[in-house]
Amino acid sequence: MPTSPARRLAAEFLGTLFLVATVVGSGIMAESLTEDDALALLANTIPTGAILVVLITVLGPVSGAHFNPAVTLGFLVRGEIPAPRAAAFAAAQTAGGLLGAVIAHGMFEQPLAQISTTARGGGGQWFAEAVATFGLMFAIIGGRRAAPSAVPWLVGLYITAAYWFTASTSFANPAVTIARCVSDTFSGIRPADVPAFVAAQCAGALAAAAMARWLFKDGRS
Amino acid sequence: MPTSPARRLAAEFLGTLFLVATVVGSGIMAESLTEDDALALLANTIPTGAILVVLITVLGPVSGAHFNPAVTLGFLVRGEIPAPRAAAFAAAQTAGGLLGAVIAHGMFEQPLAQISTTARGGGGQWFAEAVATFGLMFAIIGGRRAAPSAVPWLVGLYITAAYWFTASTSFANPAVTIARCVSDTFSGIRPADVPAFVAAQCAGALAAAAMARWLFKDGRS
Amino acid sequence: MPTSPARRLAAEFLGTLFLVATVVGSGIMAESLTEDDALALLANTIPTGAILVVLITVLGPVSGAHFNPAVTLGFLVRGEIPAPRAAAFAAAQTAGGLLGAVIAHGMFEQPLAQISTTARGGGGQWFAEAVATFGLMFAIIGGRRAAPSAVPWLVGLYITAAYWFTASTSFANPAVTIARCVSDTFSGIRPADVPAFVAAQCAGALAAAAMARWLFKDGRS
Amino acid sequence: MPTSPARRLAAEFLGTLFLVATVVGSGIMAESLTEDDALALLANTIPTGAILVVLITVLGPVSGAHFNPAVTLGFLVRGEIPAPRAAAFAAAQTAGGLLGAVIAHGMFEQPLAQISTTARGGGGQWFAEAVATFGLMFAIIGGRRAAPSAVPWLVGLYITAAYWFTASTSFANPAVTIARCVSDTFSGIRPADVPAFVAAQCAGALAAAAMARWLFKDGRS
Repeated sequence: MPTSPARRLAAEFLGTLFLVATVVGSGIMAESLTEDDALALLANTIPTGAILVVLITVLGPVSGAHFNPAVTLGFLVRGEIPAPRAAAFAAAQTAGGLLGAVIAHGMFEQPLAQISTTARGGGGQWFAEAVATFGLMFAIIGGRRAAPSAVPWLVGLYITAAYWFTASTSFANPAVTIARCVSDTFSGIRPADVPAFVAAQCAGALAAAAMARWLFKDGRS
Repeated sequence: MPTSPARRLAAEFLGTLFLVATVVGSGIMAESLTEDDALALLANTIPTGAILVVLITVLGPVSGAHFNPAVTLGFLVRGEIPAPRAAAFAAAQTAGGLLGAVIAHGMFEQPLAQISTTARGGGGQWFAEAVATFGLMFAIIGGRRAAPSAVPWLVGLYITAAYWFTASTSFANPAVTIARCVSDTFSGIRPADVPAFVAAQCAGALAAAAMARWLFKDGRS
Repeated sequence: MPTSPARRLAAEFLGTLFLVATVVGSGIMAESLTEDDALALLANTIPTGAILVVLITVLGPVSGAHFNPAVTLGFLVRGEIPAPRAAAFAAAQTAGGLLGAVIAHGMFEQPLAQISTTARGGGGQWFAEAVATFGLMFAIIGGRRAAPSAVPWLVGLYITAAYWFTASTSFANPAVTIARCVSDTFSGIRPADVPAFVAAQCAGALAAAAMARWLFKDGRS
Repeated sequence: MPTSPARRLAAEFLGTLFLVATVVGSGIMAESLTEDDALALLANTIPTGAILVVLITVLGPVSGAHFNPAVTLGFLVRGEIPAPRAAAFAAAQTAGGLLGAVIAHGMFEQPLAQISTTARGGGGQWFAEAVATFGLMFAIIGGRRAAPSAVPWLVGLYITAAYWFTASTSFANPAVTIARCVSDTFSGIRPADVPAFVAAQCAGALAAAAMARWLFKDGRS
């Protein structure tokens, strides 16, 4: 019996909710406990990597565990998901992400909805978002081929690295980017800076799908 | 030959003992070595996540490795454990947790039994405990279904994340909560604040069991 | 064709060498880079846990990867290793550990042989060493039974936790303890303090072997 | 259908590119966020270890995922790769590494090509590079024999440890060493110091191949 559409969308909603609650919540916690920015970023990185392993393992069998419209776009161009479902996924991911930010604010007794004032942009950051999302999509496609059961780990570890090696701390996810603009905390991003980030993320995911198509086309599929 | 009841209870006792000894002991160690609160919390987080993987792997085959009355409650409502055994588990977990705190104090040459004076409460913290335990129970149920051998890792990683993304640092465990009220150290909690935490934890676990029943009901059990 | 005795001893020698080089070397590095003691201990903990996973995975098939006379003692009382081989193992482990300390000093351009002046002792520390080694031996025996391929991970994670939850930072290994007394650096221990540590470690390992014999005796062996 | 030569070289190029982008990028990020050198090194270590697991898992089936001319040399002397392919691998790895440094600079809006002024040398550092690369090669050969699917993890964990236990922070890779000399940032190395590092690395890899040939020759291959 296949998973019902409602459950699939619920899985994408719930996974993105917990992902954003972790990114935003750990950012608030870290910022409140230390004045060292590297330590705060580390305390933002480790929980994010950890929760990704959990969420992708647990919800993968239900929906594929994208939690990320750029990843869904990559699978769309690969022909692995029909367009209407991809659109519904993106909507569920974005809605889940927004609620995740609200829940994080609720736990930390902050105003539930906020507007970020953190400027994030410029050529370096946009390039970084493209690189970050390229690597993420590439790791997912390659990981499913090389070691399917390792994919949750690969994503968690990739994001752990990408928080640090990209100048933008690797948002790499349009739904998470949109959700982070309603949080004026450590992990926030100004609404005005969202469109360029999302465009760079989509470009990176598409480039990775193209590269992967060539690099992995060797009969082992 | 099935595991005997005595061994099952001993496993729950010993596992919760080591879990609490780790939470309390690493908190004492961290507090004594640094004045940066984020670093202290990180030094509390990493050992807790690590020991959970070890304890659940090693004792899982004996008792199921709950170490947590809220988790036991979740399995009770799922009909996976009879009520008398669940009650005995909760008692063994609580007793083990209390001894774990005493052992931690003994190692650090502190008064063996203490009463915490750390206030932890308010709507945000209670909401956080419900969210934290919801996620824990959900990860356990979903993990057993998706990748049974990964469950020890999922729990360790989930708690690693939850220490940071919840405002309460994710106690998420009534036995550990009770044990932490006899330690007036980094990880302590005032006795007066325990009941509300425990209530929130049980509510979170029950909500997760209900959500999981719907989300995972797709013929793959 | 069975592994030859020479190769078995070489594996114990080389494994303990790298283990001690990591403990001592990372301690020197950490101490030279920060004044925060918690950060230094974390920078001592993470490499130690990581190298244990590597060494036990790679050398396990050759010698069993004890790298620890207390663990070898535990297997001796379980009847899994003959006494002459156990004695040879302990000698190879100790010699390897001593060379590991010397190699660490060589890399950091320190006097190759030193005598530690760091006092470590008292009832709390001795109790801590017994608890630490109990947990280590228990995790190894239980891990081999529950998930043999996970044992390298369990040991690495257990020691990661034990660095923090025990008051002694969990030496938990007579060969490593002896080797650390020839290094007057972050991880050193005064020669005069070694015998009590070793005695506590052996007591902990023996207690764990006894406890495991009862707890795991359920027909699944 | 075997992997084509072009794809093999592309995999080595891309893998080393991401590896160096991570080493250099996380070094720049860390240096900009903290003044604590141990924290900066930790923030350089964790991403490097994490990305290695991802890259080796994903690209291993395509090229073997060496990303390192010293490792390729080790396989050459073991007769596992023909000399012309080994030479092409080394060229692809070095080119990929150089582009990785340039990409990191681009993301952080730094001059794309730089010349490092960081002196790294002396007997201790050279010895450290030999030890570091010995351990890396030994872990790879032994890991493939003991647990092939664990090799990506073993390499990631080994490097995590080696960053700290070696006095040189374990470059352990000629292509990465060359690439790091075009970055005048946290992880850079002066061009004049490169040849001795590379020589020590090759010596370490060759010694490990010899040691492994003896230690693991027990009929299990």
